[in-house]
Amino acid sequence: MSAQALPKEQVLKTKWVYNFGNQQTDGSAEMRNLLGGKGANLAEMCQLGLPVPPGFTITTELCTYFYNNDASYPAELKEQIELAIQTIEQETNAKFGDNNNPLLLSVRSGARVSMPGMMDTVLNLGLNDKTVKGLIQKSGDARFGWDSYRRFIQMYSDVVLGLDHYMFEDIIDTYKRRENITKDTDITAYAWKEIVIEFKNLVEQELNKPFPQDVYEQLWGAIGAVFKSWMVPRAITYRKLNNIPESWGTAVNVQAMVFGNMGDSCATGVAFTRNPSTGENIFYGEYLINAQGEDVVAGIRTPQHLTVRGKEENKSDLPALEEVMPSIFAKLLEIREKLEKHYKDMQDIEFTIQNNKLYMLQTRSGKRTTNAALKIAVDMVKEGLISKKEAITRISAESLDQLLHPMLDPNAKKELLTKGLPASPGAATGKIVFSADVAEKLAKTGEKVILARIETSPEDIHGMHAAKGIITTRGGMTSHAAVVARGMGRPCVAGAGDIQIDYQSQKMTIGNIVINHGDTVTIDGAAGELYLGKIPMKETNLSGDFETLMNWADDIRDMALRANADTPTDALVAKKFGAEGIGLCRTEHMFFEADRILNVRKMILATNIEERNLALKELEPAQQKDFTELFRVMESMPVTIRLLDPPLHEFLPHSKKEMSELATSLNRDISDIENLVARLKESNPMLGHRGCRLGITYPEIYEMQVRAIFNAAITVKNENIALPALEIMVPLVATEEELKIVKNMIDKIANDAIKNSNLTEIPYMVGTMIELPRAALIADKIAKSAEFFSFGTNDLTQTTLGLSRDDAGSFLPKYHDLGIWPQDPFVSIDQKAVGELVKIATQKGKQTKPDIKLGICGEHGGDPASIEFFQTVGLNYVSCSPYRVPIARLAAAQAKLKVDKNK
Amino acid sequence: MSAQALPKEQVLKTKWVYNFGNQQTDGSAEMRNLLGGKGANLAEMCQLGLPVPPGFTITTELCTYFYNNDASYPAELKEQIELAIQTIEQETNAKFGDNNNPLLLSVRSGARVSMPGMMDTVLNLGLNDKTVKGLIQKSGDARFGWDSYRRFIQMYSDVVLGLDHYMFEDIIDTYKRRENITKDTDITAYAWKEIVIEFKNLVEQELNKPFPQDVYEQLWGAIGAVFKSWMVPRAITYRKLNNIPESWGTAVNVQAMVFGNMGDSCATGVAFTRNPSTGENIFYGEYLINAQGEDVVAGIRTPQHLTVRGKEENKSDLPALEEVMPSIFAKLLEIREKLEKHYKDMQDIEFTIQNNKLYMLQTRSGKRTTNAALKIAVDMVKEGLISKKEAITRISAESLDQLLHPMLDPNAKKELLTKGLPASPGAATGKIVFSADVAEKLAKTGEKVILARIETSPEDIHGMHAAKGIITTRGGMTSHAAVVARGMGRPCVAGAGDIQIDYQSQKMTIGNIVINHGDTVTIDGAAGELYLGKIPMKETNLSGDFETLMNWADDIRDMALRANADTPTDALVAKKFGAEGIGLCRTEHMFFEADRILNVRKMILATNIEERNLALKELEPAQQKDFTELFRVMESMPVTIRLLDPPLHEFLPHSKKEMSELATSLNRDISDIENLVARLKESNPMLGHRGCRLGITYPEIYEMQVRAIFNAAITVKNENIALPALEIMVPLVATEEELKIVKNMIDKIANDAIKNSNLTEIPYMVGTMIELPRAALIADKIAKSAEFFSFGTNDLTQTTLGLSRDDAGSFLPKYHDLGIWPQDPFVSIDQKAVGELVKIATQKGKQTKPDIKLGICGEHGGDPASIEFFQTVGLNYVSCSPYRVPIARLAAAQAKLKVDKNK
Repeated sequence: MSAQALPKEQVLKTKWVYNFGNQQTDGSAEMRNLLGGKGANLAEMCQLGLPVPPGFTITTELCTYFYNNDASYPAELKEQIELAIQTIEQETNAKFGDNNNPLLLSVRSGARVSMPGMMDTVLNLGLNDKTVKGLIQKSGDARFGWDSYRRFIQMYSDVVLGLDHYMFEDIIDTYKRRENITKDTDITAYAWKEIVIEFKNLVEQELNKPFPQDVYEQLWGAIGAVFKSWMVPRAITYRKLNNIPESWGTAVNVQAMVFGNMGDSCATGVAFTRNPSTGENIFYGEYLINAQGEDVVAGIRTPQHLTVRGKEENKSDLPALEEVMPSIFAKLLEIREKLEKHYKDMQDIEFTIQNNKLYMLQTRSGKRTTNAALKIAVDMVKEGLISKKEAITRISAESLDQLLHPMLDPNAKKELLTKGLPASPGAATGKIVFSADVAEKLAKTGEKVILARIETSPEDIHGMHAAKGIITTRGGMTSHAAVVARGMGRPCVAGAGDIQIDYQSQKMTIGNIVINHGDTVTIDGAAGELYLGKIPMKETNLSGDFETLMNWADDIRDMALRANADTPTDALVAKKFGAEGIGLCRTEHMFFEADRILNVRKMILATNIEERNLALKELEPAQQKDFTELFRVMESMPVTIRLLDPPLHEFLPHSKKEMSELATSLNRDISDIENLVARLKESNPMLGHRGCRLGITYPEIYEMQVRAIFNAAITVKNENIALPALEIMVPLVATEEELKIVKNMIDKIANDAIKNSNLTEIPYMVGTMIELPRAALIADKIAKSAEFFSFGTNDLTQTTLGLSRDDAGSFLPKYHDLGIWPQDPFVSIDQKAVGELVKIATQKGKQTKPDIKLGICGEHGGDPASIEFFQTVGLNYVSCSPYRVPIARLAAAQAKLKVDKNK
Repeated sequence: MSAQALPKEQVLKTKWVYNFGNQQTDGSAEMRNLLGGKGANLAEMCQLGLPVPPGFTITTELCTYFYNNDASYPAELKEQIELAIQTIEQETNAKFGDNNNPLLLSVRSGARVSMPGMMDTVLNLGLNDKTVKGLIQKSGDARFGWDSYRRFIQMYSDVVLGLDHYMFEDIIDTYKRRENITKDTDITAYAWKEIVIEFKNLVEQELNKPFPQDVYEQLWGAIGAVFKSWMVPRAITYRKLNNIPESWGTAVNVQAMVFGNMGDSCATGVAFTRNPSTGENIFYGEYLINAQGEDVVAGIRTPQHLTVRGKEENKSDLPALEEVMPSIFAKLLEIREKLEKHYKDMQDIEFTIQNNKLYMLQTRSGKRTTNAALKIAVDMVKEGLISKKEAITRISAESLDQLLHPMLDPNAKKELLTKGLPASPGAATGKIVFSADVAEKLAKTGEKVILARIETSPEDIHGMHAAKGIITTRGGMTSHAAVVARGMGRPCVAGAGDIQIDYQSQKMTIGNIVINHGDTVTIDGAAGELYLGKIPMKETNLSGDFETLMNWADDIRDMALRANADTPTDALVAKKFGAEGIGLCRTEHMFFEADRILNVRKMILATNIEERNLALKELEPAQQKDFTELFRVMESMPVTIRLLDPPLHEFLPHSKKEMSELATSLNRDISDIENLVARLKESNPMLGHRGCRLGITYPEIYEMQVRAIFNAAITVKNENIALPALEIMVPLVATEEELKIVKNMIDKIANDAIKNSNLTEIPYMVGTMIELPRAALIADKIAKSAEFFSFGTNDLTQTTLGLSRDDAGSFLPKYHDLGIWPQDPFVSIDQKAVGELVKIATQKGKQTKPDIKLGICGEHGGDPASIEFFQTVGLNYVSCSPYRVPIARLAAAQAKLKVDKNK
């Protein structure tokens, strides 16, 4: 337990227990940290004058005390609890443990945020062999009394005493079989009484001591169980995964029981103040007559709708609460309005009606779909309930992802074949193919295809582009396939390890299911699922609310937003999604196009500089055309062009067959090709001869690229199209000298190109990726030759963590489970170390050049948590894949608001 | 030019010119930075009252001024130089440019350290068509006069005017052919005069202007040439390679000429105050009667010995100076003693005798062999000239390397086949073999073998151990072969790219030379050379002086010294060389031994934990035996054991044949093996599933290793052998959690082992490698579970620089030439970034645990420059390969002295 122990004096005067109710309420919604979410909202409802059964909350500080003091309690706690019980007794006119007029209690955990894995609820606490009779007497219903008692034993034994639920169910099932009945409702009062005896025997038998009859013993047991549940493995894991500090602790809520199951004047229900699925401003909920809360959840009986409209829309035959209990319904409507006005958010409420009296048991912010969230936020701004800024913070940026891609119809029937990683969202149907070339060929005939590969490489890009979706059997969330698919907006299921692909026989098998080339499959990239056949899709449309909110976000954020885009097509998508420039144009992607790869290979195979220059000369017009088209699309927006980055061997063929084809088309001996491929092979290509290392050892390659950039700019300028702000980016710089050498070359080529043109100048900037720890650590020196830095956080993560993203798949899942990397560091930036380097580089860069432009073009540019971090650091822009631009726009606005608030 | 410009006021009053001579001497030896080495020592000799021809030094600050002001000089310089010339004129009774009594000057460059590539010397400056007659008149020797003039024109034209030397030689050669003479001495005065005319014509023809006749124009030309030579490419490259700042600049020395070539009462000579080859305390030098300095160097005439002893020892017929000019010799002896007493070091002196008068022209510390350096340092301590500390600083630590390995007899005749990189020093002769298995097999029969491989891998270790030397055709100074060979002390020539190895036909070819299996070759690892046949060796013995100096070093240094050693044999070598512990025992090396690899492979091939445990159980006794033997050797010294580090695929076979053998011996299908090898294949193994990532995903492997360690310790303890201080080291830690998990496991296994033994405790420490940038950046958190850090600077360099040492060979040579990495960062630590991370981790680690033990076990542990850095950082120990231990001992002492001095 990492929490700090409270100083002794503070413990002595600490108020551990906070009452709520109509007579006395000590807390409020602001005290969420101390009272937990549930407790704070119960107090708040009391403050609002709503009908809440009285009770009290034991603070989260007690949880901390409990763990710091060997599971013991401070001496004064007993008195505080007894006093609080007395307050409840006064308000309810009942007495805890009284044989004639027993007060019954519910005990619930309640942390700051709702947390699965912890003890949930014990109901009917305070029942024993004697008080059960008082309850029967009070309610006039023996069956209700014995049923309540057996429910209590069952629940308490499960969550407090640790006896499996199924043992108790067994007893009931045995009884029903013996009596030949099927429904619990057919069990009589007498029978429940018998079952209670059997339950108690079971407890005694299992634990060697009787079920506790002392009601205070019951209460202390339940309180201890809540605290202990804070540290059960499932809760610990959940906290680790959700970054919830252990030190927060949980509160305990103890509340007078009210019963929705004491006859037909009783009911229990749940409701949302607006429709959580569409966001429509209508009251939306369900209830059950004569039932306890758990019955609604159990789904044994069909719940009825609250409103007539709800009933009609759902074609239900059962009467609405509006009809059955009109005055109670009117009261609920009133409460609905009060809560929304008060909380300024859609609420999820629980209520119970006992003998025609309404009790509120819970209110909290309601979960909603992304579409609903958008509508509610925008509506509430229109209604004057919240500000635009507040609206911005209401939407989970990540959740927008589902709006940007087609999805499977949730109601469609479908047969799951296998699951992999949800590597790129969206759904797609098509014929399965196993090679990029075939994918491209079939796509050209108008076929929709799904490309399945063991893993993909840059050579497959054309096929990935041609395909509607991609499956790989190897690789993680940041494997080549995943990254490229997300960039292109193609759905992708990665690392589906159950699939065996056999390229030779053009089929894949999953268990004993065989899928042949051309069979139709559907993938759901958001779920990582593969289905046989065609599944109906639902196209989500970007409604007016989406646009409205996006515009508000744009007004607020101060980081600019760019996209990583290599082609005019990508650039158009990026602009459509609101990108304000290109933060990363990977020039090598152009090298893989069918009409260029041969010349690229010729260049690599060149045995001397003359041969290499000849091949480059043939490549240059194509490269220049790429840039020309890109500049026409982007017009005056900034475009960051990264010079060639990958190692040359990535462009070479790998199979004997391809090598032989290449040898034929180049009229060379195949052994030449084989020797070269062998010679260029690298042990760790990620750390090898790539990036500016290529540009320095083969300056003619970069020279060609830079010439192509400037000649393209000249062409576009002469077409009277506004010229993009050119930013030429040098990759993999580790030393001051490297950048100096390449920058000199760029400046020289730029000068020459301008001199040879009819123009007097073309503005451009030269900058570098900061993607190696060394570059970050000596950023002050590198900044001397750089007008901008773009953080390449993918490679910076790989090097800082010593973690190859192509290889991490073999242990990251285990690391995730162990909480070593609760967040995949390739998805959300590792702030402690990679982030530290970003900070160091930012500070050192500004030290040399206060106005240096700072951006980020790694995968993290589209991750909201990372974007918040970049806002803190003070970057000028983030760049992400086109399909994540809207997410990043919203996240950047949220980050700005949060950082401003924390200032 | 990165030097700072001097402020204007300072320039105005700056003294640019420092006189030296018997009348006025402004400088001293301390002023080396301002006056350069030569100038400062000339001044110092004047201060000592030695006979030095008068002159002056123009300061290095003027060089800085020159480059900061467009190659111009401050206005006041002219006056200062003219005044200085007047002083020389007074002392020499001659006048610069006077037709009857001309003063002649020499002009020499002189930086702080001697630097090849820069302008060296212009002699006889001040001669022209008129002053030459004055010189003839003064000397009474026309031939001398004209010869001096032609020498001057030739030299000045070469180094100042930029005309190639050979054009002048051509004229002389043409003359000699025409006149049918062979020796310069046969050229008459008249002929030299004619040649002078031809020389002047040549200059005018080439430059379109006559050879300068104005003596001040000559002087300014020479001064400018010296400054310009500071920035010629060869000088720049030399400075980059030797870390000499450009800002130092060079000084210019202008000095009155004295002539050793004016007849038989004249001579010139060079001498060392002790024997530079053996270090013996005897006067050692050569001279030539009637000659100028350059004649001694040119080697046209056979120089004579200074001493009778020298003459006799070298069986020379020519008389010694001691005999020919006994009084001058006595004077020289006196000067020798004076200089040694004054400089407290062996001096290299130049002198000239003009008409029976001795002049000293230079003194400087003399270059010497390592053996001589040792002897001189130790002798001088005995003579009371220097302190032990001073003696320590006198020896280049790196130079000790040549003493620790056998070397080729320098006088042996040998035929060089090819050159590669000098990857591991020492020489070896043996029969060439092309596989590790064959190497081992042949070695067992007593054959000496040289193992030649394209590259080596961990599988070849047994063969490398069996071989006397290793050659590879691929890989750099830090390739696997190089690192392992250095560790084992085997000579190695790496990356000999001209060799083509054909494993199939068991031969290698170099051009058209074919070397077959079994042919005898010799390699010189210190030179990186390969020879055909057997070359005689010279065994160097570690003399008493070596030991004496080492002991002094041990007394001074405060960093402990350990060795990287995996086996008892390595450990014994390490102890012999003075290691005080093992800083890195790589447990995986034990896995490759023939009797273990099968079980290792079984373990990897295991399909479930039971199979894996079974294989591990079979491995455990062997592993325990390794540790037992190691502990017996090391006794009470500390031993750091690193748990398994490399990725599992390194242990698997690669060729089809080996896989098939493995399948047979495991009774498994070959496809199982192939599938596993394919599945474990990694894109970037360096950043893959290795280190503690293995230990966490397969805890049973580390558990077995830790159990073996403790059971070995218990065994040794029970033999009443002092137990080493056990340090268990976890590799590749990137997160706090990883180390916590592994440490918990270690503590548990340790507890269990002790509980199961008859012992009550076994002291041990758990620590981690800091080898990833992230680990360094969060070292404060990691230190919570670590009792020691060992910096793995190899991997830290690879990740920080994004530079794979296996792949860097393709561009590092070019990077070296361009000055991007003047020092190989795998040899000498990159202080700016890798060093920065070491500093950060040290500081953060101490923040959490002030007493945390800090060491380094990368290759840098044996590099003197890196050791100095580690001393600055404050590490507790360095660990290096056994053969570098003596170097590191000395370097650590030197580092301590230097750091103390700079405090």
